[in-house]
Amino acid sequence: MMDKLREQRVATTIEGKNYHAFKPVVKKVKLSNEYLNRKICPNIEAAVRACGLEDGMTVSFHHAYRGGDFVLNMVMDVLAGMGFRNLTVAASSLSGIHDPMIAHIENGVVRKIYTSGLRGKLAEFISHGNMSEPVEIHSHGGRVQLMQVKEIVPDIAFLAVPICDSFGNASGAFGRNICGSLGYAQTDATFAKKVVLITEEIAPYPFSPMSITQDQVDCIVEVEAVGDSSKIGAGATRMTTNPRELLIARKAADVIAKSGYFKEGFSLQTGSGGASLAVTRFLEDKMRQQNIKASFALGGITASMVELHEKGLIEKLLDVQSFDSHAAASLARNLGHIEISANQYANFGSKGASVERLDVVVLSALEIDTEFNVNVMTGSDGILRGASGGHSDAAASARLAIIVAPLVRGRIPTVVKNVITTITPGEHIDILVTDHGIAVNPKRPKLAARLREAGIKIMSIDELYARAIMLTGIPNAIRFTNRPVAIVRYRDGSVIDTVFQIADTPPLS
Amino acid sequence: MMDKLREQRVATTIEGKNYHAFKPVVKKVKLSNEYLNRKICPNIEAAVRACGLEDGMTVSFHHAYRGGDFVLNMVMDVLAGMGFRNLTVAASSLSGIHDPMIAHIENGVVRKIYTSGLRGKLAEFISHGNMSEPVEIHSHGGRVQLMQVKEIVPDIAFLAVPICDSFGNASGAFGRNICGSLGYAQTDATFAKKVVLITEEIAPYPFSPMSITQDQVDCIVEVEAVGDSSKIGAGATRMTTNPRELLIARKAADVIAKSGYFKEGFSLQTGSGGASLAVTRFLEDKMRQQNIKASFALGGITASMVELHEKGLIEKLLDVQSFDSHAAASLARNLGHIEISANQYANFGSKGASVERLDVVVLSALEIDTEFNVNVMTGSDGILRGASGGHSDAAASARLAIIVAPLVRGRIPTVVKNVITTITPGEHIDILVTDHGIAVNPKRPKLAARLREAGIKIMSIDELYARAIMLTGIPNAIRFTNRPVAIVRYRDGSVIDTVFQIADTPPLS
Repeated sequence: MMDKLREQRVATTIEGKNYHAFKPVVKKVKLSNEYLNRKICPNIEAAVRACGLEDGMTVSFHHAYRGGDFVLNMVMDVLAGMGFRNLTVAASSLSGIHDPMIAHIENGVVRKIYTSGLRGKLAEFISHGNMSEPVEIHSHGGRVQLMQVKEIVPDIAFLAVPICDSFGNASGAFGRNICGSLGYAQTDATFAKKVVLITEEIAPYPFSPMSITQDQVDCIVEVEAVGDSSKIGAGATRMTTNPRELLIARKAADVIAKSGYFKEGFSLQTGSGGASLAVTRFLEDKMRQQNIKASFALGGITASMVELHEKGLIEKLLDVQSFDSHAAASLARNLGHIEISANQYANFGSKGASVERLDVVVLSALEIDTEFNVNVMTGSDGILRGASGGHSDAAASARLAIIVAPLVRGRIPTVVKNVITTITPGEHIDILVTDHGIAVNPKRPKLAARLREAGIKIMSIDELYARAIMLTGIPNAIRFTNRPVAIVRYRDGSVIDTVFQIADTPPLS
Repeated sequence: MMDKLREQRVATTIEGKNYHAFKPVVKKVKLSNEYLNRKICPNIEAAVRACGLEDGMTVSFHHAYRGGDFVLNMVMDVLAGMGFRNLTVAASSLSGIHDPMIAHIENGVVRKIYTSGLRGKLAEFISHGNMSEPVEIHSHGGRVQLMQVKEIVPDIAFLAVPICDSFGNASGAFGRNICGSLGYAQTDATFAKKVVLITEEIAPYPFSPMSITQDQVDCIVEVEAVGDSSKIGAGATRMTTNPRELLIARKAADVIAKSGYFKEGFSLQTGSGGASLAVTRFLEDKMRQQNIKASFALGGITASMVELHEKGLIEKLLDVQSFDSHAAASLARNLGHIEISANQYANFGSKGASVERLDVVVLSALEIDTEFNVNVMTGSDGILRGASGGHSDAAASARLAIIVAPLVRGRIPTVVKNVITTITPGEHIDILVTDHGIAVNPKRPKLAARLREAGIKIMSIDELYARAIMLTGIPNAIRFTNRPVAIVRYRDGSVIDTVFQIADTPPLS
């Protein structure tokens, strides 16, 4: 283009007078209803054709509906029906509802998966070595980073929204099946070459508030239902009634209050998992007693956080993902409940991620080893059944990173010598709170001293390990083949661990 | 990076067991106050150094403060003092307050300018051929397009905001000297390599609402004042009391009401300029009488539009630029007053620009010729004294593009045989409303018939031209040299016209 311009400029100079150098390209478009509705496709197949999908390309999805998501299966079935092959699926996370992906892998429709989480039969299928390429597991922040460095380039993002207008201005907080924050979807809307909204409702133009905007959207498909709001808060984000989890949460709240980080204007994040989510409710009394207000709560926002916000105890809610339908609804009515993108939330490569401003984070663990390395990805049987999520992102920056977990689960110890899979390195974990005792990372001697002075009994992690083993015995070693089934990418893109295929025969030992 | 990953994967496979393949790069950062305030620079010079500016680079600015902007001069003085040379200044627009740029051009600090508008002594200086490279004039939408195709790549954007937090979450609608919408600044925040916020106030983290977000911002500099809110509505966006302008506005409102486009849910934009802005107030009665509500008003949002919005007559205000301090304040309190970026507003290369949904636009003209081509850039003396603005963007798409202008200004005709400079091609203009009569573009015979049936007298543009010439005589031809001083870029990036240096001797004729 620049050559053409230079040519034109020379011409205008030679002429030596003012004239119309160039006929502009743009013609007036008649604003017919057809033109105004040009983004609306009759079905997913039409949208896929309009966006030019080809074999081997990458399609992406967000997981705001969690276990209630209908869109990924809906779209993958269409793509399979259209005969596409060797696709990469880049989902911000996958859960039990996505078991139908198994058939698409078997049939060669899906060759490769990027995701934060894997659960259910799909996870088992992958753990047994049934994909030719290993899954790439990333954190929520790490996913943005992989898009920034162009390792993940979605050719088409299929984004579930409850409502949008005919030009693509969309929100997750209004409509029938709301999901609340579209923080993960915003990343796809930014980085994908083509964006298809799958919506339950097309509202009059212009729809607002706009979480995804018209200038990011190529196609819109209206469907009966994109998800089930009631299932967002099920599974990993349920509020616990388990007495042991409540005990741990109460202890964790006590630790926070005495940690030195419980000050006016402190900030808080709680990860998914029963005990972690329950911490918030035990903090309320302490905040009232000491007249302390939080400046913000971050990450997955829960009904408990919304309650504290509405009571004036948490000033702002920075919401990348609404953890239940109550939180999703709050986004529509509370001005201080703010939707943030995954890049604002947690990306290592961001110019500013909110995790960097975080005082306290409470996180779960499937396993934690005596070096404080945490596994939230593989079960004690070595099978994938968890999610990297924001775990490593939040732990990397928070002033106080707390792990809450029961010391043993049935006959399975949580504290182990070596975790099967490292998601978050131990150097980023400050303290472990279990139902049998509390251990502080030896790298934080001042924190340990402060807690002891406040009357909290501290054990060593080795003592906790010994106690766990006493209760469960030393578990049998899991046998793996030498075939990697998942590569664990750290938030900066590096490989922090590998998950191998489990051997199908039971361990001998 | 991918090679490294492959290497690691091979290694993990050979090992045949699960282990930590790679030490992650990220270390825990201690959240000291120093770290939390790392973006805050003591002064502009420090921010410039932190962002690594070099000779020949491009710096960008937004014009939300219009004639009340302090930041461009402030920054350019610092850059001159630091000894930078050959810079390109990409301002979304320039006005009379930017006359000090003359010295920076003379001293070689500034080599090239991209802008939508040029006024005052700077414009005269340029019109007299005092820059070695011609200025590039673009429309508001066209500026985004030039950034999308990487013709304009700001190395540093210096963005004036009244308030932000220490991480860079910023708004134009809160603080002391508010400017309202940051729609143009959002473009720079998106496309610039480095973003420096110049702010009047640093609020506690996290500040919301966030018009510019923390993940877009590199540096923050606090200054006494970034602009003068009271001057936003001065000049081009003043509300007129001129009886002739009010007469024209009243006629234009009548034309709109009878055009066939005045229907429930219609949409409206008014450009800057007295008569254009005044149309809104005359539409109110007609909307009430016919029980018609507008779905949205677009573009530069005025106090009159806010009033109609608050009365329930305009449902949404899509605001790329608040045209006065009253409109700026409305953005903070009215949920239906929505900030949109320049890309959402008017970019030809956008996936969806709101101008494409526009029914009626009312625009001004310095000159309009008998082919309906419009000049809003050069005066009758051939000197630059205007702005391309959103003129061609809105006209290109609106169903009804109306030009309002007095037939003559003093001894100068507005309707001419050939405009000195074409900003908007005549094929996009539907109707001209003057104080001496109304002309419809011959390409719109049905529109003319509809208006005639409704009792509106229609003249031909040639009749209006004859009448103008009768009043003023045929003006002397302006003499230009063969040296281009400005290239007019159409919204698609093409060159639609060239402005040449005016000859300094008075015309002979």
